[in-house]
Amino acid sequence: MGEFDLIARYFKRPARRAALGVGDDCALLQPRPGTQLAISSDMLVVGRHFFAAVDPRTLGHKALAVNLSDLAACGAQPLAFTLALSLPGVDEAWLASFSDGLFALADAHGCELIGGDTTAGPLNICITVFGEVPVVNGQSQALLRSGAKPGDDLYVSGTLGDARLALDALLGKISVAPEVLAQARLRLEQPSPRVALGLALRGIASAALDVSDGLIGDLGHILECSAVGATLAVDEATALIAACSYSTWARGQFVINLSTDQQRTLVLCGGDDYELLFSAPPHLRGAVAAAAQVSQTPVTRIGRIDAEPGLRLVDGQGARLPHTYASFDHFA
Amino acid sequence: MGEFDLIARYFKRPARRAALGVGDDCALLQPRPGTQLAISSDMLVVGRHFFAAVDPRTLGHKALAVNLSDLAACGAQPLAFTLALSLPGVDEAWLASFSDGLFALADAHGCELIGGDTTAGPLNICITVFGEVPVVNGQSQALLRSGAKPGDDLYVSGTLGDARLALDALLGKISVAPEVLAQARLRLEQPSPRVALGLALRGIASAALDVSDGLIGDLGHILECSAVGATLAVDEATALIAACSYSTWARGQFVINLSTDQQRTLVLCGGDDYELLFSAPPHLRGAVAAAAQVSQTPVTRIGRIDAEPGLRLVDGQGARLPHTYASFDHFA
Repeated sequence: MGEFDLIARYFKRPARRAALGVGDDCALLQPRPGTQLAISSDMLVVGRHFFAAVDPRTLGHKALAVNLSDLAACGAQPLAFTLALSLPGVDEAWLASFSDGLFALADAHGCELIGGDTTAGPLNICITVFGEVPVVNGQSQALLRSGAKPGDDLYVSGTLGDARLALDALLGKISVAPEVLAQARLRLEQPSPRVALGLALRGIASAALDVSDGLIGDLGHILECSAVGATLAVDEATALIAACSYSTWARGQFVINLSTDQQRTLVLCGGDDYELLFSAPPHLRGAVAAAAQVSQTPVTRIGRIDAEPGLRLVDGQGARLPHTYASFDHFA
Repeated sequence: MGEFDLIARYFKRPARRAALGVGDDCALLQPRPGTQLAISSDMLVVGRHFFAAVDPRTLGHKALAVNLSDLAACGAQPLAFTLALSLPGVDEAWLASFSDGLFALADAHGCELIGGDTTAGPLNICITVFGEVPVVNGQSQALLRSGAKPGDDLYVSGTLGDARLALDALLGKISVAPEVLAQARLRLEQPSPRVALGLALRGIASAALDVSDGLIGDLGHILECSAVGATLAVDEATALIAACSYSTWARGQFVINLSTDQQRTLVLCGGDDYELLFSAPPHLRGAVAAAAQVSQTPVTRIGRIDAEPGLRLVDGQGARLPHTYASFDHFA
């Protein structure tokens, strides 16, 4: 099967929202009047972002999910995406599963594939995603990293640390009961982009981003872009490791046994969470709760924004913890 | 140097046209009223699209050029691009040259870098490019592959076959004098996207695309999308190999000696030309010539569109040639 048959068989579907989809030199996209396009690119490399033997269906899901997560962090409504794919060869079963996983998530978000590229080479998936953000009275409604203000509450959605827990277990670094690994692995391989929450937080969150490299490092981006500091309640964050509660609940006993420091490391430095981290003024706590409810996404308050620069970690008693945690960096 | 320092040092510049550029979860782009966005992605893989030892400045140029060529083929005005880059490590000299070459071409076309991704992995460059196309009375002015009509003339811009000549010489498959290789190599490593010609052909060309996989195969896309056939004047096309005229002219003698069949193969199957192949009705020959002049881009008539399906190759005497040529396919 040649390159163009491959595209036609696995990736070409009729354009719905786009003016022109797959099959010409360019796709054509016409944003609605009064909107702007939010655009983000993420590249996934074999052996780096995923194991070569990963189920291609979950890989198709994840490749799009990490991009949709960026739209969510901007409060953008997903519209469309391009897919550039480097493949070591044509494996039809692999392609069928990969495209199934990809399109299942795309369809769930009304996000259509409008173009891309296919080439031979080491497995590499690069998706560029497009979303729509309203512009009201000349003002973009996008959620940015730069709007956090001293006194704002700091929130995170969902759970934290489970993807890294799964990765460490798969790498043999820690030992985890099979039923716990199965749950945690879903977070690693099939993250749920928090698109509905991002949309619901427009006009409420003062700053937002998605947690992909680890809570500490990503919070650092908000602090830097907003020129503020923060105090992070580490025990509140650590309580968000789903695997710990699951294991307790599942068998009436702890089936994983992580030290406090291991738990803190998972949550603060773990990465691959794809949860939204955001700030909002305290008088909007009710609005944040309503946004969580309407989007059916749990949200937990884990700290506050300070005028004083820097990040302070405190435990459940409010005592300062040493800050020795670092986020993931591809080149550090 | 970490990932974010790398981006800040080599790839972050202030946004000019975009509402928001590099540094948040998404970039924000607001197309002007009455326009639509043309979008295209191309991925370049080391060892496949370029040699590992290639001058990084020319690689930066080429990675963007092949994408701008897709905008040119649509008649779109370049606006912006995203860059996803997988790097085996941080080589500052390499990055400085790569970004120099990239931005020199970007600036020449007023096309700004608005976002992207950086990761560790085998060298891979994925660019997604955005251009603007006017919509007049609800009708897109984009040049598509699908509008060729029987009786239309068939044209190609510039020269053909030189990039493949350089590749074959660098691979040691043919022997070429150094001064000829130097010229041909420019076509392989630093193609000039025909953006000005694409813009000038709006409203004139009935169909267009850029020649990247070889003349025969790319012409096949126009024929398929337009449901027409064509007759291609092979000798007219073969006369467009710049290296052949250059070598004659440079030393008063042939410094490369290619058989007719070798020349035909270079031109018909060569690939990496990044010239525009387009059709236009015969009554617009004057307009095509004017578009060539205003864009300072040579254009040559090399055939005509037929109602009869299929592609017919003819020589300078109009005699049919056997059609045994195939285009580049990554998986064939």
